Amino acid sequence: MTVLLVAGTTETASIEGISAAGADPDAMLHTPAADLEIVAYGDLVWAPFVPVSPSGCPTPAVVTRAVRDLLGFDVIMVDAGLACETGAPTVAIGDTPGVDIRRGEAVPKAPEIVNRAREFGATLPVEELVIGETIPGGTTTALAVLTALGEPATVSSSLPENPLALKREVVAEALAAAGLESGDAAGNPVAAVQYVGDPVLAAVVGLVMGATAAGTDVILAGGTQLAAAAALARHAGVDAHLELATTPFIATDGSTDVDALAAALDLDLRVTDPGFGRRDHPATAAYIAGEAKEGVGMGGALALADRAGVPMTAVRDQLVAMYDRLRADSPTPQP
Amino acid sequence: MTVLLVAGTTETASIEGISAAGADPDAMLHTPAADLEIVAYGDLVWAPFVPVSPSGCPTPAVVTRAVRDLLGFDVIMVDAGLACETGAPTVAIGDTPGVDIRRGEAVPKAPEIVNRAREFGATLPVEELVIGETIPGGTTTALAVLTALGEPATVSSSLPENPLALKREVVAEALAAAGLESGDAAGNPVAAVQYVGDPVLAAVVGLVMGATAAGTDVILAGGTQLAAAAALARHAGVDAHLELATTPFIATDGSTDVDALAAALDLDLRVTDPGFGRRDHPATAAYIAGEAKEGVGMGGALALADRAGVPMTAVRDQLVAMYDRLRADSPTPQP
Repeated sequence: MTVLLVAGTTETASIEGISAAGADPDAMLHTPAADLEIVAYGDLVWAPFVPVSPSGCPTPAVVTRAVRDLLGFDVIMVDAGLACETGAPTVAIGDTPGVDIRRGEAVPKAPEIVNRAREFGATLPVEELVIGETIPGGTTTALAVLTALGEPATVSSSLPENPLALKREVVAEALAAAGLESGDAAGNPVAAVQYVGDPVLAAVVGLVMGATAAGTDVILAGGTQLAAAAALARHAGVDAHLELATTPFIATDGSTDVDALAAALDLDLRVTDPGFGRRDHPATAAYIAGEAKEGVGMGGALALADRAGVPMTAVRDQLVAMYDRLRADSPTPQP
Repeated sequence: MTVLLVAGTTETASIEGISAAGADPDAMLHTPAADLEIVAYGDLVWAPFVPVSPSGCPTPAVVTRAVRDLLGFDVIMVDAGLACETGAPTVAIGDTPGVDIRRGEAVPKAPEIVNRAREFGATLPVEELVIGETIPGGTTTALAVLTALGEPATVSSSLPENPLALKREVVAEALAAAGLESGDAAGNPVAAVQYVGDPVLAAVVGLVMGATAAGTDVILAGGTQLAAAAALARHAGVDAHLELATTPFIATDGSTDVDALAAALDLDLRVTDPGFGRRDHPATAAYIAGEAKEGVGMGGALALADRAGVPMTAVRDQLVAMYDRLRADSPTPQP
């Protein structure tokens, strides 16, 4: 079992009210780097603090690592454009954070990133690849990409209240700046990601193209961001079977329609319930309250646990133990 | 179990006749990057070919990976200064190949590399760290460092005939260019590595300093290069218990005296015999003929296998299977 996490940043995340993937915009810059460290080591190395939402919900990286502790799956981490260094080992696919999509060209190097990721995905000697992401602001860029491709423009949010009106406003501004109408980038996924996407989407679509071309089974571990990556892959001509492994927090998110998105993109939707409602603890309660929902491969990790027959009680126990240890050991930013 | 491999390059390797860690000097530039890919994935990703010596001996990375296939230990890979990109995930500690030591300053950024590696080693949440290396030309820079520190100046070679006269000549030239006499850098390990060392030695000594300060058990997985790193650590005031886990090909190498070196540096010497003489195959015969001998954590990997009770017949079977597959799948450069 190999989980590949693609990490990056986009200046789009610093738009006030867009993302909960960090206590504040400054903290958010560190979130993907910290997420990788948590999944790689179960602890921080260079990152200054454990990522939490403004209300204190811990990053889904903790869930993914908890499952990894139980299953021992391999991880490969890809740097698609981090804003700060990480102590986790990464393969360098990109080197620049994404530009605010309202500026008209979000990922100037998208063609190179897609190609490099495609080559990497094609040569990676694994039979199955579970691909997740960590990029604050990623649902907004995903919405922009889905809109540019003319696919169902529906995304989730790491916030309990999806700021959809704000996202749509940002996306409209982005498309206008890029000179695109809805659907204009249909059949041209590289343009979609270059003008209104983010570096993680560029890397993920390349990885999916390369891996599926090489006959590798691909599971997209995430919610609407990974669905947007799947949309890019479909528009690149990828017709391989693709599974979208996500959490019930995405599946039951009334602000988005992941079923419709999965159906439109011919994705097998797999929802794995970690049963967080059965365990009263800050590490689980925040998810029940609608925060975070997904990310850092969480839905895919849960699917792997389920497939291996690991009971969800064990996942919850491991999550709680890890969360308590991280809270005791590591500073968290004060909201 | 965590094996940390430090990879880098030094222009010193391009001196004719110095190293067998590649079919020719051009191929040698790719050796550390390819070694990391082999240990990470069991196969090449971006590297153009499986590293072999001029006579065709495969890289010890194949042995380390064979053991990893059996034991499933974690790996952390550190880029201390690679000359070309690798498809293996790495933590960036350095970014520049080492300069030919005859030029007078081998690692201008040694202080930064040592500090960065020390911080990384100190925060890494592991109880035991097995540290190996891959850097062509590394025994020559090791000899220079041991000389500069005033320690027993004895090193092994990846060649069956250790080109000691040539190495001593290069080291004499390096010390003269740096304005150093033998022993002048005693107590000043950063200067030793900065003037006549290589980026891998800089990173390893930093890692050892940081890890031991944090109470992590350190096993140095290698031969005389790792002993030189231990010498640097001793001169940095590290008095923790250090084990040097190596192969019988180093221990019985008549051209070096690793026992004396270990004794002088207060290292516990552990020699693990993979019994290559009991298996007639190109993957094992080259070692029996005195090639390669050690590298890419091979001695440490064998020690871990032994400690876990994995029989060496299983290691040999896995090595042979992997070697045959790599030969079938991957191009090798023609000597």
